[in-house]
This record gives sequence, structure tokens and C-alpha cells, in this order.
Amino acid sequence: MADLTIAHVRLTPVLICDPPLLNVHGVHQPYTPRLVVEVVTADGVTGLGETYGDTAYLELARPYAELLTGRSVADLNGLLPLARRTGVGHARVEDAVGVGGLRGARTADKLRLSVVSAFEVACLDALGKAYGQPVHALLGGKVRDHVEYSAYLFYRWERHPGGAGEPDDWGAALDPAGIVAQARRFAREHGFRSFKLKGGVFPPERDVAAVRALAEAFPGQPLRLDPNGAWTPRTSLEVAAELASVLEYLEDPAPGTAAMAEVSAGTDVPLATNMCVTAVPEIREAFLTDAVQVVLSDHHYWGGLRATRELAAVCRAFGVGLSMHSNTHMGISLAAMTHVAATVENLGHSCDSHYPWQTEDVITRRHTFNDGRLPVSDAPGLGVELDRDALERLHARWSDEASYGALRDRDDAAAMRAARGHESWRAPALPRW
Amino acid sequence: MADLTIAHVRLTPVLICDPPLLNVHGVHQPYTPRLVVEVVTADGVTGLGETYGDTAYLELARPYAELLTGRSVADLNGLLPLARRTGVGHARVEDAVGVGGLRGARTADKLRLSVVSAFEVACLDALGKAYGQPVHALLGGKVRDHVEYSAYLFYRWERHPGGAGEPDDWGAALDPAGIVAQARRFAREHGFRSFKLKGGVFPPERDVAAVRALAEAFPGQPLRLDPNGAWTPRTSLEVAAELASVLEYLEDPAPGTAAMAEVSAGTDVPLATNMCVTAVPEIREAFLTDAVQVVLSDHHYWGGLRATRELAAVCRAFGVGLSMHSNTHMGISLAAMTHVAATVENLGHSCDSHYPWQTEDVITRRHTFNDGRLPVSDAPGLGVELDRDALERLHARWSDEASYGALRDRDDAAAMRAARGHESWRAPALPRW
Repeated sequence: MADLTIAHVRLTPVLICDPPLLNVHGVHQPYTPRLVVEVVTADGVTGLGETYGDTAYLELARPYAELLTGRSVADLNGLLPLARRTGVGHARVEDAVGVGGLRGARTADKLRLSVVSAFEVACLDALGKAYGQPVHALLGGKVRDHVEYSAYLFYRWERHPGGAGEPDDWGAALDPAGIVAQARRFAREHGFRSFKLKGGVFPPERDVAAVRALAEAFPGQPLRLDPNGAWTPRTSLEVAAELASVLEYLEDPAPGTAAMAEVSAGTDVPLATNMCVTAVPEIREAFLTDAVQVVLSDHHYWGGLRATRELAAVCRAFGVGLSMHSNTHMGISLAAMTHVAATVENLGHSCDSHYPWQTEDVITRRHTFNDGRLPVSDAPGLGVELDRDALERLHARWSDEASYGALRDRDDAAAMRAARGHESWRAPALPRW
Repeated sequence: MADLTIAHVRLTPVLICDPPLLNVHGVHQPYTPRLVVEVVTADGVTGLGETYGDTAYLELARPYAELLTGRSVADLNGLLPLARRTGVGHARVEDAVGVGGLRGARTADKLRLSVVSAFEVACLDALGKAYGQPVHALLGGKVRDHVEYSAYLFYRWERHPGGAGEPDDWGAALDPAGIVAQARRFAREHGFRSFKLKGGVFPPERDVAAVRALAEAFPGQPLRLDPNGAWTPRTSLEVAAELASVLEYLEDPAPGTAAMAEVSAGTDVPLATNMCVTAVPEIREAFLTDAVQVVLSDHHYWGGLRATRELAAVCRAFGVGLSMHSNTHMGISLAAMTHVAATVENLGHSCDSHYPWQTEDVITRRHTFNDGRLPVSDAPGLGVELDRDALERLHARWSDEASYGALRDRDDAAAMRAARGHESWRAPALPRW
């Protein structure tokens, strides 16, 4: 039988290029940090995982990797208790501004779960390879052969300020026509049949106009709008009333569970969230107050693929819908998302993914969407292979502190400050409108 | 790699002897039916499962076993959808009297889940053997090395009416002194440190006196009382007030979620249930109304070990406690209970088990409690081996229709009718007192 003991763990932070995508907090920086986790068993089987690569996560991942050596990759229930032995600096927990704010207050456990998730995925990948089984089979088996994804539309600039980063040919999208053009290209190139607009960048009238334009361009196709809590409950209800006939769901219109509950009580448009239900302790209040009708799971911050399945079970018990959130990620995470999504019967909506915006990856064969869907791999483990040259190249960028050191922590507000050329700019307080 | 295809399924109904244990519905019959499931893979690996053996379950299990052949033992998420292809007779669903009533109204899905659970356990046993891993490792790994069980105390007769069944040397227990004597023997022989009394047989004063006597005999040790919904909310509150200082929890004092919520609102004694939360659709109302503080899981009727873990996740999210229920069972099920209990971090109470009352089994080495605990097996699969001679002997009893045919369906009320010698006796309507 296979020796499942963890002999070695490798952690490789990378910086991958990212387009100038706009959100309520600012703009994506030219490069964004990710962490690649490799768990190597005594038999030499390597499992892959991926998570956030910012300093706060690296600071946790390094001592955690030491603790893991000598344990079994099958001991998945032990991963979080083990992480709780790792201290989290007070400064890290309090630092809930910027991107961290997109998923509520940052707590020590949320940081730990975000680190644990990459190790859980890596252990499952290794375990699958050891057993000769795909990861979905370790989660009880797929209930579908394809997983559907949604096109993730962003207001964006043509280039990063000063021409930083890697150029692309998408051009700017700052109005409804630009958003529709972006959507048409996503539909043409990847076959996406549902669309999500990241709003909250401009006053709500522009988001409403953009969604109306999408509804005209793609009649009857599912549309989502996510202003990241930029609106008051009153504004949220006005937008919901205007778009009621075309929205699949409205995502985080207002900030916080109480405000969401107020909106929910006044509209029949389903409300989705990845901001007020982001960890187990936040579920109860949101469900008791009927604040949300759809929870966006994300295995990165829920603590892994099995935790995502548990979230699905909680949603099922309470008749709350389930969709999937995405942050900037590479192909290891997309494989993990696809495996878990394939096993969750009550995943009633297509999944979000930033992947089409990411042109750099660390796997040998990029995932390809057909009809907006990915096939579920039946190869052992995740079914992806590490491209060591690419990993080395992207790690070299991360290691070049002189040139890229300032980008080791994602900070959309800092990028906006740099773009505007004045240091006093701050991400607006929410709700803004 | 192992071929995990199911080549063959064997179903063996058995009758095992059962002492004359009393409950609100009547008395246990001299023999009770169980079903042993064997799933055999193409590689010749056999996985074992066990569930209820009454006709309604056999009628479902037989066509279901046919559907399973050719599928993978790893395809656990497909087990329930597959069972839903199997029709359930209307009469079976409506037949919610007697023992079925102990876990709420009988629905087609509850019947299916009770059948699926045995196959899920058998698949996990086979999968564990194929991978060389214990079942707990397939559930993410044990978080404890021992699982604690509770002594299950019953009012009982010395013998079955007319001397039917197999004799034992426990003697009658019909009053507080008899219950304390029974508890002392359980503590002496198995080391149990917590005690559960099955009440509801006599007026509540006797249950109160019995629990008080136990509290005197075992000061500071956890005590539970379960009258199976025999009381009105008012009686329940009176008993709760009288026993508040000694009860770990009060189990199903009043019948139904609404009555439980009424009791819950009036006492600080935690209320537990295996009657009003017995399936996913029943969770929401009970949790929203704070009707129960502890749910008793039971992998047999929740649909398996993974469903039990999902129930645990729902309880964790809502701050509801978790314990484990037991019905008459043999050693295959006890092994399964122990594996899943070992993996659930929020299992905050010792588990119930009828096992010490069961003297007949189909495994080669009976489980032995030490200090009221069972060690968690690290052998591949469940860690139990089938005793084919015993299986054959107990199946021969089941097959002897002339002598035992009337016992193929458990019916505690029928046994009470036989004992009392008048056909008109019916289990009392609940609440009784």
C-alpha cells in the first residue's frame, strides 16, 4: 500500500500579471501574488494547491508547512486544528481594509482557513494520485460531467497607469457599450452563457444601464450584478426594482448582514453574497434573518473542498441557494473548483471565475472553456501538471524585490492612488451611493 | 490500480434475539430483523453494511442492489439519486405507526436513506480495503482515538411472554432500584460513565425517581432521560424543573417540533431529539424555533456516514449540539458508528448504543467496551470480519417462516398485545401524560 506520509512541503510564491480591472476599492495592480503549495509524500507523489500569496498568508503558510511534515495526506480533518497552533499577528487580523474587506472582517481563523485550503487541495491531489482516483471521487464522486462558468465582466482601463504590467488587446470598458463588447468577446471565445458584472465603480445608474444593455444583447440569459456593498438599502431596492425582470441575482448590493436583510425584505430579486457569509460563524444570523438567498462558496476561504461541501449541506438544509465566488487565480485552483463543483448537487448557478483574465499560469496545459463549461477530469488527482519553468519564471518575478516588492501584497487602493497621482486617495466608505 | 466496480451485491436478512425492553410503544419482540449488505468488487474485495431488516427495507434493497452492480464503490454521491429511481409503495410510506413513529412520519426518502446507508457503509468498507485505509481516513481522518458510549438503561421484564426468545440473566427492572442495579452492572462490565434511561413506560413520577436514584448512585455523571414524546409540554417542564440539576439533556419529552419549542422556551435543560429532527427537511423549523439544543445523529436513517458528517456541519453552523442515537444493531453498524464518531469534532456527548443488549452478532470478534469506550480501528475498511457461520445461522432463523415469520417486521405494540393477551391493545396516543 502507498506510504501517505508527508515527506516534504514546497511553498513557492509567484506574481502573475493582472489587467487593470476596476472595483469599488480601486483597481487591480499589474501583478498579483499567489502561493503554490506542493506536498510530497514518502513515495514521491506530489500534490498541488494554490491560494492567496500576500505576506499575511505566507507568514502563516511557512510555519504550517513545517508542522505538516510527517503527517498523512489522508488526515484532512486534522489540518485546521493544526493551523490553530500557528499564531497570527494582531496586525494581520486588524488589517481588514482593501481587498480583505471584500470578504468581511479579517479574522485569524479566516486567514488560517485560506492557508489550510491550499494544503487540503494539495493533500487531496496527492491522495488521488496515490489511490489512482480523481479528486472528485475522493469527495464522493461527480454528479455532473461538466461544470458551467459565468463570464466575469469588469469595467476596466485599456492599460495600467504608466504602461506597467503586461499589455492585452481587450481595450477599455467604461460604459454599457464597452461592457457589452466585452461580454460578446467572452461569449465568442469561451461560449459563456451567463454574465456577471462587477459594479460599484460608477454611480448605480451606469450599472443599471449596463445590465439593461446586456439583457438586450443576450435576451433570456442569466445576468448578475455585484457592486460589492457600494449601495445603501434604499439604492439597492431602487436598482432591484429596475432590474427585477432581468437579474438572476443581485450580489452584495449593500454592506453587512443587517443591510442585506433590509434589502431582502423589500424585493423578490434573490440576493447573493460573498461578503456577509464568508465563514461558518456568519451563517446563522444571515439565514435566520433571510438576508441572502444564494451563498457564493469559495474553497479558498471556506477552508477547502470538503468545507465547501459542508457549506453546501448547510445551504441545502435551509433552502438557500449556492453559487461559487472567484478571486484572481490560476489553473490549479480552477481544477480544484471544478472538482468540488462537480460533486455538489445543489450548486444551482454557474460558477464565477477570473481565469479568462489570467494569461499566466503554472500548469502545463491551460483549461479551455467550451460552451462556457469545463469538463470534469477523471485523471488521478486534480488532473493538472506543474510547469516548473513557468513556476520558476513567475517566482523569479516575485523574488525581484527591487522591481516588484511593492506588489507582494495586493492593494487595489494603492494602485488607484498611483494612477491618480495623489497619495491622499482612499477607497470610498461603503455604502457610497 | 484497484478495480472498484461493483461485481456483486449480497443481501442477507437475519433475525437476532432481543431482550424484552420496554418503551412507550410496547416491548421489544424476542427477535428483531436486520439486513446485512455485502458489496463485492471486481477485485473480490467485500464491503459490509447493516441496516433495518423489516419488509419495507428489504423491498427497497433488493431492486436497489440490482441497480448498483457495475457502478463504482467510490461513487457515493450517486447512491441516493440512484435510490430515488426505486419506487416506494404508498402503504409503506403511510405506515408511520409503531417503531417507525419513533423517528417521525415515515416518508419515501426516509426509507430510501435507511437503505442507502447500509450500501454507503459497505462501499466505504470496500473502498478502505482497496486503498489500504480505515474508513475514518476516507472521512478525512479521526480526531480522537476512542469513542465514548453511554449505558442504555431500559425498564424490562425478566423474560419474554411465554418464555419466547433467548433467556438472559439480567432479571426484571421495573422501578428505580431495578434501573440502578442495571446501571451498576453496565458500569461494572463495560465501564460506562454516562447513562441514558428509556422512559415513557410508566407515569413520569417513576422516571423522575429513577433518574434521581441514578444521580445518587453516580454523582456528577452525565444522565439522560428519553420518554419518546410521552409527555405534554406542561409535564415536560415539570420534569425538567425537577431534574434540572442532574440531567445532561432531556430527550424528546414532548412529541413534535412545536411542542419541543414550547418546552425549550421554558427551561434551561438542553433538549435533545431523534424524533423531530430525523431528516434534512426537518432541520430548518427546529433550528429556527430553537426547539432542540442537541440532535441525535444516526447514520442509518440520515443516509450514511457522510450524511452524518454533513448533519454535524449544519449543527456546528447553528451552535446546536450533536450526540448519536441507536436502535437495535449488530457489530457492523457499531463499527460504522465508531468510525464516523471518531471524525466529528463537534460530537459533544457520548453515543447511545443498544449493543450490550445484543448477544448475537455476525462478526468474528465482538466489540469490547473499556471504560465505556471503543478504540477506533486503524485496520483497512471498518476493521470487522464477517462470521459466515453466524450469518448463516441467523439467516436460517429469518428463513424459518413457520416459526419466525411474524417477527420479520418489528412491532413493539404487537409484542405488547401478545403479552397482554388481548388483541385490542394499541400503543398509547402521544402525549400520554
